[in-house]
Amino acid sequence: MAKDKKLVEAITSMEEDFAQWYTDVVKKAELIDYTSVKGCMVIKPAGYAIWENIQRELDRRFKETGVENVYLPMFIPESLLQKEKDHVEGFAPEVAWVTHGGLSPLQERMCVRPTSETLFCDFYKNDIQSYRDLPKVYNQWCSVVRWEKETRPFLRSREFLWQEGHTAHATQEEAEERTLQMLNLYADFCEEFLAMPVVRGRKTDKEKFAGAIATYTIEAMMHDGKALQSGTSHNFGDGFARAFEIQYTDRDNKLQYVHQTSWGMTTRLIGAIIMVHGDDSGLVLPPKVAPVQAMVIPVQQHKEGVLEKAEEVRAALAAAGLRVKLDDSEKSPGWKFSEQEMRGIPIRVELGPKDIENNRCVIVRRDTREKLEVALSDVADQAAELMDVIQKDMFERARAHRDSHITDVKSYAAFQDAVEHKPGFIRAMWCGDEACENKIKEDTTATSRCMPFAQEEISDVCVCCGRPAHKLVYWGKAY
Amino acid sequence: MAKDKKLVEAITSMEEDFAQWYTDVVKKAELIDYTSVKGCMVIKPAGYAIWENIQRELDRRFKETGVENVYLPMFIPESLLQKEKDHVEGFAPEVAWVTHGGLSPLQERMCVRPTSETLFCDFYKNDIQSYRDLPKVYNQWCSVVRWEKETRPFLRSREFLWQEGHTAHATQEEAEERTLQMLNLYADFCEEFLAMPVVRGRKTDKEKFAGAIATYTIEAMMHDGKALQSGTSHNFGDGFARAFEIQYTDRDNKLQYVHQTSWGMTTRLIGAIIMVHGDDSGLVLPPKVAPVQAMVIPVQQHKEGVLEKAEEVRAALAAAGLRVKLDDSEKSPGWKFSEQEMRGIPIRVELGPKDIENNRCVIVRRDTREKLEVALSDVADQAAELMDVIQKDMFERARAHRDSHITDVKSYAAFQDAVEHKPGFIRAMWCGDEACENKIKEDTTATSRCMPFAQEEISDVCVCCGRPAHKLVYWGKAY
Repeated sequence: MAKDKKLVEAITSMEEDFAQWYTDVVKKAELIDYTSVKGCMVIKPAGYAIWENIQRELDRRFKETGVENVYLPMFIPESLLQKEKDHVEGFAPEVAWVTHGGLSPLQERMCVRPTSETLFCDFYKNDIQSYRDLPKVYNQWCSVVRWEKETRPFLRSREFLWQEGHTAHATQEEAEERTLQMLNLYADFCEEFLAMPVVRGRKTDKEKFAGAIATYTIEAMMHDGKALQSGTSHNFGDGFARAFEIQYTDRDNKLQYVHQTSWGMTTRLIGAIIMVHGDDSGLVLPPKVAPVQAMVIPVQQHKEGVLEKAEEVRAALAAAGLRVKLDDSEKSPGWKFSEQEMRGIPIRVELGPKDIENNRCVIVRRDTREKLEVALSDVADQAAELMDVIQKDMFERARAHRDSHITDVKSYAAFQDAVEHKPGFIRAMWCGDEACENKIKEDTTATSRCMPFAQEEISDVCVCCGRPAHKLVYWGKAY
Repeated sequence: MAKDKKLVEAITSMEEDFAQWYTDVVKKAELIDYTSVKGCMVIKPAGYAIWENIQRELDRRFKETGVENVYLPMFIPESLLQKEKDHVEGFAPEVAWVTHGGLSPLQERMCVRPTSETLFCDFYKNDIQSYRDLPKVYNQWCSVVRWEKETRPFLRSREFLWQEGHTAHATQEEAEERTLQMLNLYADFCEEFLAMPVVRGRKTDKEKFAGAIATYTIEAMMHDGKALQSGTSHNFGDGFARAFEIQYTDRDNKLQYVHQTSWGMTTRLIGAIIMVHGDDSGLVLPPKVAPVQAMVIPVQQHKEGVLEKAEEVRAALAAAGLRVKLDDSEKSPGWKFSEQEMRGIPIRVELGPKDIENNRCVIVRRDTREKLEVALSDVADQAAELMDVIQKDMFERARAHRDSHITDVKSYAAFQDAVEHKPGFIRAMWCGDEACENKIKEDTTATSRCMPFAQEEISDVCVCCGRPAHKLVYWGKAY
């Protein structure tokens, strides 16, 4: 029992220190470990299994839209990185440079990819000749490196895992359509699979991707009210095509530049899941993404028949399609309960001699802690049904939390007050001038998160400068 | 028709120049493209889809044995790489070194992982405390970098994709058992999934992995008679554990070193598939690993009803569980046939107005070119059945080819003659002295491939020095 206590005590409460709570959860739920390389982490089995589920589902959704997977090198020669001016300015300060191969210095140094636009351009330049070669709708799953100064597990690490889609199209319209299609795919994925509501919108020019003409984003709200950019989709127009000379012959035999997009989601999503759904007992995983959806925990497991019945229940749940495990280790039930809670497993099934005598067991929901007495003959059906109920409830709860933490403001004083006293998103009108964005950031540390697709005119003047304004913007402090 | 001819002409024949044939196939079957980074390739959709199928099946087999996936950093600090003497000597000459992060030089340079034993050791050192933490049976899917001088697509590239399993066990026996279990898993996978027969055996000390006490290998024979090492599994004993101080408390509360293994397979397998099964018309893919198993090709597709019927056939094959596509592009049927053959798609279904009139179609096997007239009502069943038949036939053909290219020799003259005139494996007895291995390699360029698990005494003296010998060894030229 002393040990149980220790496990639970080891998490700082969210209210006390959200950042420390987060760090405690990633460690105690055994999602990651730190390494000898500062800012690089080990993703442990419990963390990686979440990523595998994200990958499988995203990949399936990608392929339904015609995406094909490829793999490009991890190295970018310096001269290649420098071909697109805005892009190199955005990334060069934070890349890792390889200077030696074996014992010899390289003729030209190479960076480890921070993103692969330049490599895809170099590839497309040869791969695309005619309109018959278009569109190219390629994606790769890989790791990328950005030499960040401040790092946090999942949220900002020097190496992280992601997918990066890179497409080439004959027309600007088709590129724009693909850019939005992927942004909406990301949003639907977050809402349906991660039970995480997002705001869909467009980044301001100040916040857009280096080299893009338009960046679209989905912004999720964490439990502490901060925003987390959870996926982005970029329309490059023909900017990269002009820099890299990617041209195709159209139906009239004329040379045309292609129009390109890119879009990505990362292991950062695991950080989002933690901060949207977690509580003071640890991780809370939505059933769809949970590597283990149910843990069967026998009570007084040494009594005759208990383990056998527990195994029957495990088998029944597995047969009903659940990802289920039986914890028959030598730990105390209390310790096992704490572990199951810490790891965010959506339900546990408790089962002791008394329960068996009465042909029942107890299901405990991780999200609400609600206990349900269930007939043993019903346990598989009930558990399967609960997966849908929990998934839906978690989404609704996250949405209610998000919606109750959005403040509409019409004056700069109200804006500053909201940043100070009302954690969450702030909605306010903006004139479109970057100077106002800069001032707001300087004064309050809040940044423009996005111009939502769902526009409203909550006022007719800019919250910062008072000039006429027609753009509604979501603002907030962000990870 | 001129275009069809061009497509086929572009492959050099195997007999004329096997190396050029290989290069032609990887390019013309659109498996890879070259890049600006020497020795690094783009794996294109047709190549990557093969890798995805390999991954899915291997990963499934791994998990059945209790393997859990993780992800470790791609960077290894120099001091960490140097901790195990043999290991660093084996790898340091061929790693890529990162010296700068952003604009600043690193305090300690790091290499991009050539393999991750040292990182796993550094991780296990903290992750393993007690016998209750054992075994650890972890694997990761990632890319690795080895700065090779000579490179060839899939077979030897500076960056390649692989999986690397790394396990830690309480006892030497358990480590040895896991080492052999994974080797056998690899062998079964190659034979059952890739239709590629392999010889299972142990590497000599000269050929074993840097830091291992024993390396097991599977060796496949390519069409030209050369060997390709296709998967290896290493037992490290407690060597790494001593170098990295990875200790656990046993049941008697005593500190013990763990015993470790590692095992890997790479994108090299795609090269093996090409060279075991390919022919002068291009790639020939075993049905189980083929991303597309059947291509429906309409003839005179503009005639009324042809495309509709072709789509019906496609749908029927898909419903029967086949991965099938319909080629309704504007190319000529001959061109489409050539493309389907080049890409190694196991069967094509030809279907024209005459066929439809007679309620039949023609199935053409890629492996044998055999044509089968099939009733339209039967096409799905027949195609599904053919998948099994082709898979089995391809394995048997590869095995017959392999077995007919094994030469047993008892004298050094016979050995030298075999290397010169009989492409394939040579079986000969060996005394166990590395000097003989070195002499054979120097005289003939053949290397010891493995000491097979299935030992025989085909003679009682060493083929090189004439001293008593009890080890049967497979020798051969290798990729």
